[in-house]
Amino acid sequence: MDLSKYIRNVPNWPKHGVQFKDITTLCKEAIPFRETCERIANQYKEKKIIKVAAIEARGYVFGGVVAYLLGVGFVLIRKIGKLPYTTIDESYELEYGSDSIHMHIDAISSGDKVLILDDLLATGGTAAAACRLVEKAGGIVEGLIFVIELTGSLHGRDNLKGYDIHSLIKMPVEDE
Amino acid sequence: MDLSKYIRNVPNWPKHGVQFKDITTLCKEAIPFRETCERIANQYKEKKIIKVAAIEARGYVFGGVVAYLLGVGFVLIRKIGKLPYTTIDESYELEYGSDSIHMHIDAISSGDKVLILDDLLATGGTAAAACRLVEKAGGIVEGLIFVIELTGSLHGRDNLKGYDIHSLIKMPVEDE
Repeated sequence: MDLSKYIRNVPNWPKHGVQFKDITTLCKEAIPFRETCERIANQYKEKKIIKVAAIEARGYVFGGVVAYLLGVGFVLIRKIGKLPYTTIDESYELEYGSDSIHMHIDAISSGDKVLILDDLLATGGTAAAACRLVEKAGGIVEGLIFVIELTGSLHGRDNLKGYDIHSLIKMPVEDE
Repeated sequence: MDLSKYIRNVPNWPKHGVQFKDITTLCKEAIPFRETCERIANQYKEKKIIKVAAIEARGYVFGGVVAYLLGVGFVLIRKIGKLPYTTIDESYELEYGSDSIHMHIDAISSGDKVLILDDLLATGGTAAAACRLVEKAGGIVEGLIFVIELTGSLHGRDNLKGYDIHSLIKMPVEDE
């Protein structure tokens, strides 16, 4: 199944010149949604993953299913200020300024093998911050997986050197 | 399995006097997370649901799994401004002021039977707005399900009269 045909391209969102890759058109169809989640889980089913950690909000849609399929717990990585208990946090650079994500301090135990999941790999800044969070908690980043990877000028994988990285759909970042 | 013992109570968050019910402690444990998702899906497996629609962000964690288990598509209801394509939107009242949620205009087809899912039923304002969104798109709200229902002074069910409502865990809203 060619999953890429279920991704909608939305031009000029969230700003002029950006070709936004919309995964909601994939999620709303039962068969490609199931296929996406199962492909991710199958990629890691032999790896003795202990936790799936996903980045809000779209990462949760797939991340919960993958945790379920692997029979492991699910960890919520959120934008700063969104989690109620004691957290650890990490910042990452944006085009202008910076932003932060956080995770509950007891979400991951020392030595846990963690799969990090998000819907999109663009610059890799958020994913790299997620890796630092998991490692700060004593976890081991067993891999990172993305539904879509933007190829071309963003070089997201350069921000994630040394990690095992997979993506299901590769799409060019450039204007179409 | 008593799912309520996996919910962490966080006092005075997000503000003084609120006893926040934290579901991350349930999600991070494989067995109660699986049990929660399967109980929700089992409640609706005979109802010929066509779509599961969940409210961001915690609703997505469970909602994706329930859609997977029911073999149906998943619809993202988001806070206003978060979806890239043409949307329909609905407002709801807050203690001070109001807020809005939206959904892609093509997320639900006319006649689709929809299960609406969120992690928490408090006042029911957001859930009622989600019902209006689904109905505006021509969908039929087959039911609403919540992981936690706050019982006591909030009367969330009064905002959702006429709908089929289920919750897995009932907890008092009052200070403990």
